[in-house]
Amino acid sequence: MSICPAIKKLRPYQGGKPISELQRELGLDNIVKLASNENPLPTSNKVRLAIERATSEIGRYPDGNGFALKQAIGRHLSVPMGMITLGNGSNDLLELIARAYVCCASDEVIFSQYAFVVYPLITQALGATEVVTPAKEFGHDLAAMLAAITDNTQLIFIANPNNPTGTLLTDEALYLFLLKVPKSVIVVLDQAYVEYLDTDDNAINWLYEFDNLVITRTFSKAYGLAGLRVGYSICSVEIADYLNRIRQPFNVNHIAQSAAIAALSDKEFIVQSVHDNKNGLLQLAKGFDELGLSYIPSSANFITLAVSDTEAIYQQLLEKGFIVRPVEVPNHIRVTVGTKNENVALLNALKSLYE
Amino acid sequence: MSICPAIKKLRPYQGGKPISELQRELGLDNIVKLASNENPLPTSNKVRLAIERATSEIGRYPDGNGFALKQAIGRHLSVPMGMITLGNGSNDLLELIARAYVCCASDEVIFSQYAFVVYPLITQALGATEVVTPAKEFGHDLAAMLAAITDNTQLIFIANPNNPTGTLLTDEALYLFLLKVPKSVIVVLDQAYVEYLDTDDNAINWLYEFDNLVITRTFSKAYGLAGLRVGYSICSVEIADYLNRIRQPFNVNHIAQSAAIAALSDKEFIVQSVHDNKNGLLQLAKGFDELGLSYIPSSANFITLAVSDTEAIYQQLLEKGFIVRPVEVPNHIRVTVGTKNENVALLNALKSLYE
Repeated sequence: MSICPAIKKLRPYQGGKPISELQRELGLDNIVKLASNENPLPTSNKVRLAIERATSEIGRYPDGNGFALKQAIGRHLSVPMGMITLGNGSNDLLELIARAYVCCASDEVIFSQYAFVVYPLITQALGATEVVTPAKEFGHDLAAMLAAITDNTQLIFIANPNNPTGTLLTDEALYLFLLKVPKSVIVVLDQAYVEYLDTDDNAINWLYEFDNLVITRTFSKAYGLAGLRVGYSICSVEIADYLNRIRQPFNVNHIAQSAAIAALSDKEFIVQSVHDNKNGLLQLAKGFDELGLSYIPSSANFITLAVSDTEAIYQQLLEKGFIVRPVEVPNHIRVTVGTKNENVALLNALKSLYE
Repeated sequence: MSICPAIKKLRPYQGGKPISELQRELGLDNIVKLASNENPLPTSNKVRLAIERATSEIGRYPDGNGFALKQAIGRHLSVPMGMITLGNGSNDLLELIARAYVCCASDEVIFSQYAFVVYPLITQALGATEVVTPAKEFGHDLAAMLAAITDNTQLIFIANPNNPTGTLLTDEALYLFLLKVPKSVIVVLDQAYVEYLDTDDNAINWLYEFDNLVITRTFSKAYGLAGLRVGYSICSVEIADYLNRIRQPFNVNHIAQSAAIAALSDKEFIVQSVHDNKNGLLQLAKGFDELGLSYIPSSANFITLAVSDTEAIYQQLLEKGFIVRPVEVPNHIRVTVGTKNENVALLNALKSLYE
C-alpha cells in the first residue's frame, strides 16, 4: 500500500470546534460559538417548510443535475444555468477547480499570506507548488500577485472579502487586476461573504469579459445554511462542463437543494442578516475600542482582533464557554459576529481576561 | 487554461433519470422510478423526527469529525470509531481511496466487467490504468482478478452483491481471495447492498486480519436515505487517517448525520425493507418467468433482465412513465424492486411491450 507522497505529508483541515465537542470536553451547558462565521439568526421559516416537504423524498437520490436550484440561482443572478456548478459547500468547488486545472508538481497556485486555509491544503493535496505573496495591510497585494505569475501558474485564489482578515479589495482594483492576468491563468474569486457588502454586484458581469474567471459563492454565510453544505460557482460554460465531469454525481443532497431554493426566495432573511451583521460589527468594534484592543476593519461577518497571546486567549475563552478562532495572523484571533447578547457576553469575557 | 488531460477525456456519470426530469420532458404525472435501486418505503418516522430536530441547527457547520454518527456506527458494528470514515455517500469514499493510493498513470486499478460504473470513472479521472477482468456468469471471476495483479496494481474494486448484476460471491471465496492478494494491494469491498443478505456479517472480522481491506457501506439502500448522501468505510486506522486528511472537512451535512443516526436506531425499518425486498424479488422473478423473460438471479434490491433491445425497451418504458436503467451488460436492463403495486405495474407494462 503506497500512499501518494503529497497525501502522506498532508495535515487535515481543522474546523472551528463544534459546540458538542466542547460540551463533551468541559461539561459546559452554555456555549457561545463565534468560530466559524456562521449566521446567528434562527432558521428561516421558508427553509424549515421546504425541509419538511423534502423529508418525504429522501428515499430517492437527489437530482444530480440540480435543475431546480440552478434555475433559481440563474434567475437570482441573471446568468444562464450552464454557467452554474453546484458544490457540497463552496469548498467542493475550490477543490474541483484545482483538480481540473492543476495537473503536476510544477504547476503553481498563487494565493496571499493570510488567505483561506483551504487554498494551501488543496494545493498540497495535489502535490503542486504553492506561491504565497505577502499580505498588504492584512489583505491582498494584487501587484505582488501579478508579479508572481510565471509560465507555470495555473490558478490564483482571491477571497473578497478576505477570510480570515475581513479586508476588501475594490471592484476597480479587481477589474484592473483581471485585465492584467494572462488568459491562460484561472482566477478564482471566492465571494463567500459577498452578500454582506453594500456595493453593486459587478463581478458577475466580468464573467462575460474574462473566460478565465471563476466566481464561487455559498449558502453557508448570509443565507444561514452552513449545516447543509451548498455552494456554487459561476464561470464560462467550458469550465463549468469540466467541473461537472469530475464532481461527485450527487454532491449536493436533496434536502440541501430544497432548502437553498427556499433560502433564495426568503429576501427578508437576507435583509435581516445583513442589517444585524452591520449592527454587530459596530457593536464589537465599539467594544474592542473601549477595551483598547486593536482590530482589522472588516467587510464580512467577523472581526479579527489583536491579542497579546493567541493560544492563551483562545484557551481562556474556551474555559469560559466561548469558541473563537486562532488564525495565522500572528497574535490575532477571529471572532464571528454573534447575536447582540452573544457579542455583549464575548466583550465581557474579553474584559475579564484583560483586567 | 490547460485542463488536466485525464479530465479532458472524461465523460460524466449518468445517474438514473430523476422523476422531475421525466415530468418536465413528457408532461406525465404518474411516474414510477425503478432506476436507482432506491428503497420504496416511506421515510422512517424516527428519521423524520431527527430531521425536524436538526433543522434548528442548520445555521451551524456540521460536526466535521462526525463524532455522534461514527459512535453509532461503531456500536452497531462493534468496531472502534477510528476505523470509520464518513463520506458524502459511499461514492465519496470510493473516490477518496483512489485519490489516496492511485498516484500516477502507470498505477493499475482492477475491477470486473459489468462492475459499478463509478470504478472506471474514478480511475479515468486520475489518469490511471484500468484493468478490466472478464465477468464470469455475469459476476466476478476472482481467479482472473488474482491473475491480473502486477507490481503496478494499487487497488481492486469488488462489489458484493454486485451492481448492476446482483450476483453474489460467497464469503469463503472472498476470504480465500483476500489470502492470496499481496498486502501491498488495497482491496475495496463495496457492500452497498449488504443489508439485504441473509448471511452473517463476516467481512468486518476480516479487517483485523487484512490491513489492505477497505469495506464501504451506505445509508442509500436498505436504510432509505439515498437523498441525504451518507456512506462510510471501515478499514485500518492507518488508511482511515489518510482518507480523513483528503476528504472535504464537512463532507456529510448536519441533517444527513442526524438522519443516519436515527436510521441506525430504527431496526423495524430495516426488517421491513429486507422483508419487502425479498417478496418483491420473488414477485418480479415470477412475473418475468411468466413473460418468458430471462434474468440474472439477484441478491440485492434489483433484478437485471434480458431484453430484445435495451435502448428500445428503455424508451418505450419511459413513454409509459417507467424509469428503468440500461446497463452495460448487452441486451439487459436493470429494474429496482419497487412497492408491490409498482412491481405489478412494471410487469404489466413489460407484458404490453412483448405482446
